[in-house]
Amino acid sequence: MANPIDFYFDYSSPYGYFAAMKIDDFGSRHSRAVNWKPILLGAVFKVTGGRPLPTLPLKGDYAKHDMARSARFHGIEFKFPTQFPIATQAPARAFYWVNERDPVLARKLAKALYRAYFVEDRDISSPEVTADVAATHGWQRGELLAALSNPAVKDKLRSEVDAAIQLGVFGSPYVLIDGEPFWGVDRFDQMERWLKLGSY
Amino acid sequence: MANPIDFYFDYSSPYGYFAAMKIDDFGSRHSRAVNWKPILLGAVFKVTGGRPLPTLPLKGDYAKHDMARSARFHGIEFKFPTQFPIATQAPARAFYWVNERDPVLARKLAKALYRAYFVEDRDISSPEVTADVAATHGWQRGELLAALSNPAVKDKLRSEVDAAIQLGVFGSPYVLIDGEPFWGVDRFDQMERWLKLGSY
Repeated sequence: MANPIDFYFDYSSPYGYFAAMKIDDFGSRHSRAVNWKPILLGAVFKVTGGRPLPTLPLKGDYAKHDMARSARFHGIEFKFPTQFPIATQAPARAFYWVNERDPVLARKLAKALYRAYFVEDRDISSPEVTADVAATHGWQRGELLAALSNPAVKDKLRSEVDAAIQLGVFGSPYVLIDGEPFWGVDRFDQMERWLKLGSY
Repeated sequence: MANPIDFYFDYSSPYGYFAAMKIDDFGSRHSRAVNWKPILLGAVFKVTGGRPLPTLPLKGDYAKHDMARSARFHGIEFKFPTQFPIATQAPARAFYWVNERDPVLARKLAKALYRAYFVEDRDISSPEVTADVAATHGWQRGELLAALSNPAVKDKLRSEVDAAIQLGVFGSPYVLIDGEPFWGVDRFDQMERWLKLGSY
């Protein structure tokens, strides 16, 4: 089997959420495994000077409109959250902790966390809420809550974010296919072509 | 015939160039006229705090890579220009001046100016170069050169840019279809769906 695809995303990114709903199907169709890698855009923006899209003059209003329309375009449920953007340490740490134990369940949890935030309007920046979501997916609530403040888990996330920045990851979603970078759910058409032709 | 589509672009924008190579065909397929409207991203960025993509940390390197790849994806000739970005008053004024005289030729000139910059690597920020390009499309070089510093032509461009900013135009390409905004050549898929379904 060919190299896995690396899929970088932030839990506070609507376009990351849309990509998350599509990437596994994309991977299967091309016989590629997908490495899910939650990152923290806040840390990335310190390097790039970036800011959350909806906070920008003019562009911000358009972005909110485009997010809702893009959700309909892709046929994905979406409600712009009451709290936005949010810090995403809790869901990102939960993912990495679960992933070391069960990668298949980690992916299910990743999608459930995204849905909790972007469909059910639950504030997953809260460790309590993240633990609630994990509890409905078979994890011991208390054990997961403890993991979220475990120094080893914190270090794991920090080193994943640092590694991502080193690789040039500056946004969400960001996909690496054999080293070729694709930024945005609107690059799935180019990703498709890339895998079909081997490059272009 | 339904309302025309408004197509905003800056002559220094690679994605605007790609859109320019596609928009007339898109309009014809949907029986819509297209109003071409060159703007000045420099003036827009003063309002939005935006900066040219290739100058941004991390994002800049990706952007250059993505521009070249997107050109191949769309099957459009492209060479990243030696001078970039450039001031685009000269080609934008040339367009509006010609457009009042012959809208069909104005569109041909618009594409020729884009090709001069993004294929032939000619610095169209220079009135001389813009006049050279216009001269090969049937315009009197001296007359066009005079128009570029004509106060009425300058006012026309200024008022078009102001009007665009009032409408929320913050980037290039930016397309308005019956008031619905689409930013980026990567929204042509959504524009297509929008016109097919009447909305979605």
